[in-house]
Amino acid sequence: MSNPFFKNNGPISISEILTLLDIKIDKKNLKADISDIKDLNTSDESNITFFHSKKYKYQAKNTKASFCITTESLKNELPKNCVPLVVDNVLVSVSKLTSKFYPDSINDDFDETAVDITKTKFVDKVKYGNNVLIGDNVSIGSNCLIGHNTIIENKVSIGDNCSIGSNTIIRNSIIRNNVKILDNCVIGKHGFGFFPMKNQNLRYPHIGIVIIEENCEVGSGATIDRGSMSNTVIGKNTYLDNQIHIAHNVKIGENSIIAGQVGIAGSSVIGNNVKIGGQAGISGHLRIGNNVEIGGGSGVIRDIPDNTKVMGYPAKNIREFLRDNK
Amino acid sequence: MSNPFFKNNGPISISEILTLLDIKIDKKNLKADISDIKDLNTSDESNITFFHSKKYKYQAKNTKASFCITTESLKNELPKNCVPLVVDNVLVSVSKLTSKFYPDSINDDFDETAVDITKTKFVDKVKYGNNVLIGDNVSIGSNCLIGHNTIIENKVSIGDNCSIGSNTIIRNSIIRNNVKILDNCVIGKHGFGFFPMKNQNLRYPHIGIVIIEENCEVGSGATIDRGSMSNTVIGKNTYLDNQIHIAHNVKIGENSIIAGQVGIAGSSVIGNNVKIGGQAGISGHLRIGNNVEIGGGSGVIRDIPDNTKVMGYPAKNIREFLRDNK
Amino acid sequence: MSNPFFKNNGPISISEILTLLDIKIDKKNLKADISDIKDLNTSDESNITFFHSKKYKYQAKNTKASFCITTESLKNELPKNCVPLVVDNVLVSVSKLTSKFYPDSINDDFDETAVDITKTKFVDKVKYGNNVLIGDNVSIGSNCLIGHNTIIENKVSIGDNCSIGSNTIIRNSIIRNNVKILDNCVIGKHGFGFFPMKNQNLRYPHIGIVIIEENCEVGSGATIDRGSMSNTVIGKNTYLDNQIHIAHNVKIGENSIIAGQVGIAGSSVIGNNVKIGGQAGISGHLRIGNNVEIGGGSGVIRDIPDNTKVMGYPAKNIREFLRDNK
Repeated sequence: MSNPFFKNNGPISISEILTLLDIKIDKKNLKADISDIKDLNTSDESNITFFHSKKYKYQAKNTKASFCITTESLKNELPKNCVPLVVDNVLVSVSKLTSKFYPDSINDDFDETAVDITKTKFVDKVKYGNNVLIGDNVSIGSNCLIGHNTIIENKVSIGDNCSIGSNTIIRNSIIRNNVKILDNCVIGKHGFGFFPMKNQNLRYPHIGIVIIEENCEVGSGATIDRGSMSNTVIGKNTYLDNQIHIAHNVKIGENSIIAGQVGIAGSSVIGNNVKIGGQAGISGHLRIGNNVEIGGGSGVIRDIPDNTKVMGYPAKNIREFLRDNK
Repeated sequence: MSNPFFKNNGPISISEILTLLDIKIDKKNLKADISDIKDLNTSDESNITFFHSKKYKYQAKNTKASFCITTESLKNELPKNCVPLVVDNVLVSVSKLTSKFYPDSINDDFDETAVDITKTKFVDKVKYGNNVLIGDNVSIGSNCLIGHNTIIENKVSIGDNCSIGSNTIIRNSIIRNNVKILDNCVIGKHGFGFFPMKNQNLRYPHIGIVIIEENCEVGSGATIDRGSMSNTVIGKNTYLDNQIHIAHNVKIGENSIIAGQVGIAGSSVIGNNVKIGGQAGISGHLRIGNNVEIGGGSGVIRDIPDNTKVMGYPAKNIREFLRDNK
Repeated sequence: MSNPFFKNNGPISISEILTLLDIKIDKKNLKADISDIKDLNTSDESNITFFHSKKYKYQAKNTKASFCITTESLKNELPKNCVPLVVDNVLVSVSKLTSKFYPDSINDDFDETAVDITKTKFVDKVKYGNNVLIGDNVSIGSNCLIGHNTIIENKVSIGDNCSIGSNTIIRNSIIRNNVKILDNCVIGKHGFGFFPMKNQNLRYPHIGIVIIEENCEVGSGATIDRGSMSNTVIGKNTYLDNQIHIAHNVKIGENSIIAGQVGIAGSSVIGNNVKIGGQAGISGHLRIGNNVEIGGGSGVIRDIPDNTKVMGYPAKNIREFLRDNK
C-alpha cells in the first residue's frame, strides 16, 4: 500500500537490499532496482514481496514480484519469475526493509513542519482558537472550526463542516465532511505493533492511515491508531464516546454506536449498525457482523455473526448470559 | 431546567413551533408565545412540555403547561388546559424544539471568547501558568492556581482555593471551594446522547451542567460530561482517580472514592461513602446505595442496596463471588 | 527515602513535632532536632520512624531511630533507645509529619518555574516544538525531541535519544536513554493515596518518583503515577500501549508488553517478559512472576507464579478458563 502520507524512498537497488538483510546469494543477474515492497497479490515485477506462512501458498504461486523474502521451507512454492531471498525471520526482514522504503512510518516524532495557523493560508478560511498548529500540505474544507492548542500535522486532510476540539492531535489521517472530533484526542499515531526483541524491540512500519468517514463523532480522549499495512477506518455516521481506543487496521462500519472506554484490538472488523456498550473489549483479528449488540463490559474473544446480541466475558448470547446470571 | 450557561432563545410563537415540528392542527385560539420547554412537573402556563410514556400519566394529568408534545395514544391523559401536539416520535420532536430554544447546547465547538488570562481581570488575582485561556463571564475565587495550557470556558465558576492542572478544559461547570482537578481533563462537554438516525444521527440538547462540590479531587485524564435535562454532580469530598469517565446526568454522593479507569454510564445515581475499585463499570440508570463497596473490575448491571459489598461481572454479593471463584 | 525531587525541610525540633501531632508527654530529655522521617529499617538516630502493625515487630525491635510514632499496644516492642510517641492513628500522624518534612510532595500544582524552552539552555541542544515549557534544573541528554505544548517540570532528567510527544506532562521522573513517550501523557503525578476522612480527606505525601528505564515506549494518553514511599519503575525495553494507567509504587520488569487500557493498581510488582492483554486489570499489592501471560480483559486478584498463562475475571489458568467457557 502506498499513499501520499509516507514518502517512498525507492527505488532501492537489489544489492543494497541484500546487504541490508544480510543475504549472501549469487548476485549474477540481479541488477534490478526495486521500486516498492508490497504484498504477494499487489506486487508487480518492479516490486519485492514477502511470504511467511503456508496459508498464502496460492497467492505465492501467482505473485508477479521479482523478489520475495521467504524461508528455506517455503521458497519452492514461488514461481520461476520470482527470486527467493531466504532469511531466518521473514517479518523482521520485512520490517527492516519497509523502514528503508518508508523511514517516516516508524516513528511518531512531533511534526516539525507545524506552524501557527495565523501564518498559513487558513487564517481567513477556518475559525480557529489560540495556538493552533498546522503542518505542511494540510487541506481543510469550508466552514470548519479548530479548537485551542490543537495540532493538525502535515498532509492531513479535513473535509467541510468539521469541528475539531481543543488539545487534539491529528496526523496521517483523512477526515471527511461533517465530522466532529472532540478534545484531547490523538488520531493517527502508529499502532502497538513491533517485533519483541530482547533489550530493544523492533518497531515495524505503519504505512496505513486513519480514515474517518462523513458525519462521524469522536468523543474526548480517544486514541485511534493508524494501520500498519492497511488503513484504520471509521464508517459513516458512526459515533464514538469518550476514552475509546481503536487499534491499528481496525475497520468499523456505518451507523455504529460505541460507548465510553471501549477498546478494539488490532485488525478487527466491525459491521454496520453495531452497538457496543461501555468498557467492552474486542480482541484482535475478529469479525463482528452487522446489527450486532455487545453489552457493556463484555470481553469478545470470538467472531460474532450478524444480528446477534451478546454479553459477558467471554461474550456469549445475551439470553444465555442473563439465564446463567439470574 | 434553565440555567445561565445556555441562553434561552424564547419566547417562540406557537405557530413557529408547529411549523418546526410539522404539525398541522387548527390554529384558532393558538396565539401564544412560548417562553421555554420544561418537563411535565415544572412547566407553567407559558411553557410547552412533553409526554412520551405511560409511566408519566400522573404527572401528565397535573401539568400546568399550555401545550404538550405527545402521541395519539397518550393525548387523552392531558388536562383540558393543555393542548396536545401529536407527533410520531416525541423525543425527536423535543430534541428539535429544545435545540431551537437552546441552540448552544447542541454542539461542543471550542469557546471563541477565550483569551489569554493576562488580558483578563484575573491577571493579578490568580496564580497561572503559560498560555492559560479564560472565556467571557468566568468567575474565579481567591487563592486559585490554573496550570499551563488550561482552558476555562465562558461562564464557568470556580470557588476559592482551587487548583486546576495543566492541559485541562472546563466548560459549563460550577466548581466549588477547595477542589483539585488535575491534568488533561475534559469537564463539562455534552454527553453521549442522541437519536440514532440512518446517515446522520440527531444530537439532543444538553442543557445540564457539571457541579463539583467542595473538597473534591479529580485525577488526570478524566472526562465528566454535563447533563442533558439535569446536572451531573460530584458530591463533597469525593475523590476520583485517573482516567475516569462520568457520563451525563450522573450524581455521585459525598465522601466517595472511585479508583482508576472506572466508568459510570448515563443517569446513574451513586450514594455517599461509596468505594469503587479500579476499572469497574456501572451501567446507566442504576441506583447504588450508601456505603456500598464495588470490587475492582466489576460490571454492575443492577441496583445495589445500602451497605452492600459486591464484586464480579455481573456484580453480586462479594461473599458469593469469592465462594464461586475459590 | 529521600531524593533530589522533594526538598527536606528538616531538621525539625521534637517539640514542634509533638505540637503538630498533639502528643502530650514529658518533654524532659527531648531536646533533639529530627533530620528526617524514615521507615524502621533505614532510620538512624537522627530520624523519627513509625510502627503501625505487628507485622513489623522484628524491624521495630531493631530500629535505630530515636523516636517512633506508634500505638499504645505496640509501643513495648520498641528498643530502649527509641522513644515511643503514642497516637490514635499512626498513618494519619505519619502523613501529617511527612507533609511537614516534604511539603511539595502533597500537591500536584502546576510548575511555576516552567518557562518557554527558547529561554533555556536547551534552545540549541534539543529539537523542540511550539510552546514547550521547561522547569528549573531539568537535564536533557543529546539527540532528544520534545513535541508541541509539552511540559517538562523542574528537576526531571531525560537521557539521550529520547522522543517525547506533544501535549505531554512529565514531573518528578527520571527517563533513561532511548525512551519514547507519546502524546497526551501525564507522568509522575502523585498516586491516589490518602486517608479517607469525613468532609476532607487527608492526602499523604508522595516522595517517590517515576523511573522509566532504557528503550521503553509509553503510548498516548498514559498516566504513570509516582510512588508514595518508594518509586514507580518501568523496566528496560518494556512497551506500554495507549491509555494505560500505572499506579504509585508499581514496579514492572524488563522486556514486558502491556496492551491498551490496562490498569495496574498501587504497589503491584510485575516480572520480566510479561505480556498483558488489552483492558486487563491487576489489583494492588500483587506479585506477578516472570514470563507470565495475562489474557485481554482479565481481572487479576491474586499473585501469579512464573511461567503461567492466565485469563478471566478473576484470572485463572488459561486452559481452565477456555475449558470452562467452551
